Amino acid sequence: MNHAEIIIIGSSFAGVSSALTARQLYPNKRVLIIEKEGNIGHIPSSLNLLLKEELKHLSDKTFINEEQLEASGVELLLNNEVLDIDLANKSLLVEDENTHESYHYDKLILAMGSSPISERILGSNHPQVLTTKTLEASKKALQEIEGSERILIAGGGQIGLEAADAFKQVAKNVTIVEASDQLAFKYFDSDMTQLLEEKIQESGVNVIKGHYVESIHSQDTEFNVILSQDIEILTDHVMLAVNFRPNTKLIEDQVHCHLDKTIEVDEYLQTSMADVFAVGDLIRAPYAYTDTDYYLPLVNHAYLSGKIAAMNLYQKTSAVPQALRVTGSQLFGLYMVSVGLTEQEAALFYPIETTMLEKEISKENPSQITVKLITKKETGQLIGAQVYSQSDILTLADLLAISINAQMTDEALAFQDRLFYRGEFSMSECIYACALKSYQKRMSEVFLDGN
Amino acid sequence: MNHAEIIIIGSSFAGVSSALTARQLYPNKRVLIIEKEGNIGHIPSSLNLLLKEELKHLSDKTFINEEQLEASGVELLLNNEVLDIDLANKSLLVEDENTHESYHYDKLILAMGSSPISERILGSNHPQVLTTKTLEASKKALQEIEGSERILIAGGGQIGLEAADAFKQVAKNVTIVEASDQLAFKYFDSDMTQLLEEKIQESGVNVIKGHYVESIHSQDTEFNVILSQDIEILTDHVMLAVNFRPNTKLIEDQVHCHLDKTIEVDEYLQTSMADVFAVGDLIRAPYAYTDTDYYLPLVNHAYLSGKIAAMNLYQKTSAVPQALRVTGSQLFGLYMVSVGLTEQEAALFYPIETTMLEKEISKENPSQITVKLITKKETGQLIGAQVYSQSDILTLADLLAISINAQMTDEALAFQDRLFYRGEFSMSECIYACALKSYQKRMSEVFLDGN
Repeated sequence: MNHAEIIIIGSSFAGVSSALTARQLYPNKRVLIIEKEGNIGHIPSSLNLLLKEELKHLSDKTFINEEQLEASGVELLLNNEVLDIDLANKSLLVEDENTHESYHYDKLILAMGSSPISERILGSNHPQVLTTKTLEASKKALQEIEGSERILIAGGGQIGLEAADAFKQVAKNVTIVEASDQLAFKYFDSDMTQLLEEKIQESGVNVIKGHYVESIHSQDTEFNVILSQDIEILTDHVMLAVNFRPNTKLIEDQVHCHLDKTIEVDEYLQTSMADVFAVGDLIRAPYAYTDTDYYLPLVNHAYLSGKIAAMNLYQKTSAVPQALRVTGSQLFGLYMVSVGLTEQEAALFYPIETTMLEKEISKENPSQITVKLITKKETGQLIGAQVYSQSDILTLADLLAISINAQMTDEALAFQDRLFYRGEFSMSECIYACALKSYQKRMSEVFLDGN
Repeated sequence: MNHAEIIIIGSSFAGVSSALTARQLYPNKRVLIIEKEGNIGHIPSSLNLLLKEELKHLSDKTFINEEQLEASGVELLLNNEVLDIDLANKSLLVEDENTHESYHYDKLILAMGSSPISERILGSNHPQVLTTKTLEASKKALQEIEGSERILIAGGGQIGLEAADAFKQVAKNVTIVEASDQLAFKYFDSDMTQLLEEKIQESGVNVIKGHYVESIHSQDTEFNVILSQDIEILTDHVMLAVNFRPNTKLIEDQVHCHLDKTIEVDEYLQTSMADVFAVGDLIRAPYAYTDTDYYLPLVNHAYLSGKIAAMNLYQKTSAVPQALRVTGSQLFGLYMVSVGLTEQEAALFYPIETTMLEKEISKENPSQITVKLITKKETGQLIGAQVYSQSDILTLADLLAISINAQMTDEALAFQDRLFYRGEFSMSECIYACALKSYQKRMSEVFLDGN
């Protein structure tokens, strides 16, 4: 029987991150990744980058490749599918091109990821329905859309919008179907998506809000898509950009799971079984300032949870940090950032205040930037922020994430020491200026004394 | 007698910042700046930018101009020098082209700034000795160096190095005299300036360390500069890039001052006299993690102290925040950032640990970046950071400043949620990776269990 002290099932962001960390921390241990696909390192947005002519081939951009993984000392089995996990005997049954092998582990990290397969949409598992989660799926999607005209995207969140933007670059006829009344509603309040909606309208993308896809029917060379309230749309292709679901089939009967099939873990990412950890899109994350675990299938969370699990394999050392749902993207010419709670979410938990500021980024870059800060009413503590601009302001995402994580108040941010260089403050001045506005508003009665 | 409720003496960064804030907070008050120079908004690095061909005229780049100030409602008297302050009667005697006027105030903000005049250097007040503090001084410096060859810069700190870099661009023969054994020692430890020193050597700039300028003697068309240990250097020009001193002559007998002639203020920036505030380069700043007030004549501190004073004019609302001495520059092709305590300083206050990391910035930008973090030994709390790279990494300054201000530990930074976009984390990943290294080092005994 094969034996590796540390075995990881799955080689997406969380799996690779845990493997590399484990390898570095425990150099005397054998670290083995078992992956059912034939490649590693695929970045799901590669198809978009290729359509926007920022990549030449779908496999040009990877977060890691086989050589780099090998150089680190991590072992990798590609095209190997785990068929069964025997927790009692700490062994895995693995299929490799029709031969079966057993692998024994001391520590097991589950990192099987998620899939955009929605049980709610009848016909969504049709082989011609497109996704970009794997390299194979992306390749197929690229092939399929060649020569066809109409693409319907189910889901108007960030993934759906990024895909729509990319398809528009290659002159497709794009329709987005979004169940809520607002695009990108998970990350942005409606007052922060008005300009985005205008830009999308200008681009010619057709947006159907307040409806969801009920079923997808293949008819000859096209699809008939049925939306809620019996709306029918004929299209050449359907792309799924709906919520992801964890790939937990293999293990859901053997460890405790939540109702949504995510795996229950403690704060060190151990499952209900000793020596078995779960990471990435298989688990929920503690969502900052909500006292709640949310399902946040984001790369940043996958990457960090992988590291955390590896650190806790032999001694529980590092608790999983609060997730802030940091997100940023370029959509239809707008750079957009969201960190932490939206106004809508925050209002469920606290009395809040919101402050918006629109200004020039700087003297050197006179583009407009729009900042919205969401703060606790009494203390001014920052719990959410949204920013957009036609200039690249994505660097503000990490600054906002630290500010929210570190419980900064509007006052602390307003008077935060900062870099002055070449006659100017940097772009972060826009955040500090909005924080000052929030603080002055909160203290406005005090300043009345001077008036 | 003229009357304005709020009068500010001096229109540099601190003065303008306090005036604009006061105007905004107290719209019913008259806010008046009295300035002895004939212009406002000069940025001292303008001469460098012009020599590097990033500006066409010295006055092209200002932090504010007269029209903008006027539009805000702040009144400005240029070419008006305050000759006397009568604190008992709350009045100022002001000279305007030989006529004298009295001005009465309710609240007075002192913002006279600083000058690089060193009493220790004999002859440093010679009119041909160059500085760049005012537009006039910069214009004169530009004129003087035209056609001359040799420039000696007294001081190898950031100002001296920026000037040396700029003079090198126009093929001057540059000599830097630095009293300490290391260039830029206030901001960087010696292990972080090695590459800089190499680059300076390659550039042909002559560096004399461990010596200071004792006296400057004008001889016909050149200067004979005497250094410590009787070294003599002949040069066409001398530029002062030594420590600044506060311009407090006007008031030093009327309010409490420290021995270094900085004005004593409370945490709301009020002087020992009610209704009189002092800001910018006239005061010391509470330097984070030292329990000490330092003289930090930096624009960022001037700007923030101006805002703070304005907010406290009628009710003490906002305490002055801790200064972090955030600095960043481009020197001889290297972008360099320093925030908080250097290793040398920090070791005076705490048991510390330092961690260095050199890596590629990202896949898209494979330039090397070098990060040094200074942390408290027990807790891993970040109290200082230095970074350099040939790529522009200045945006990291503000991220580090917030991290240090918010008392982040290496652990918190290592697992800080962050943006993932287009297949990569952003540049701040370099900081987080160094923090992880620091954390893993601090916890290394724990990980031995796995080995």
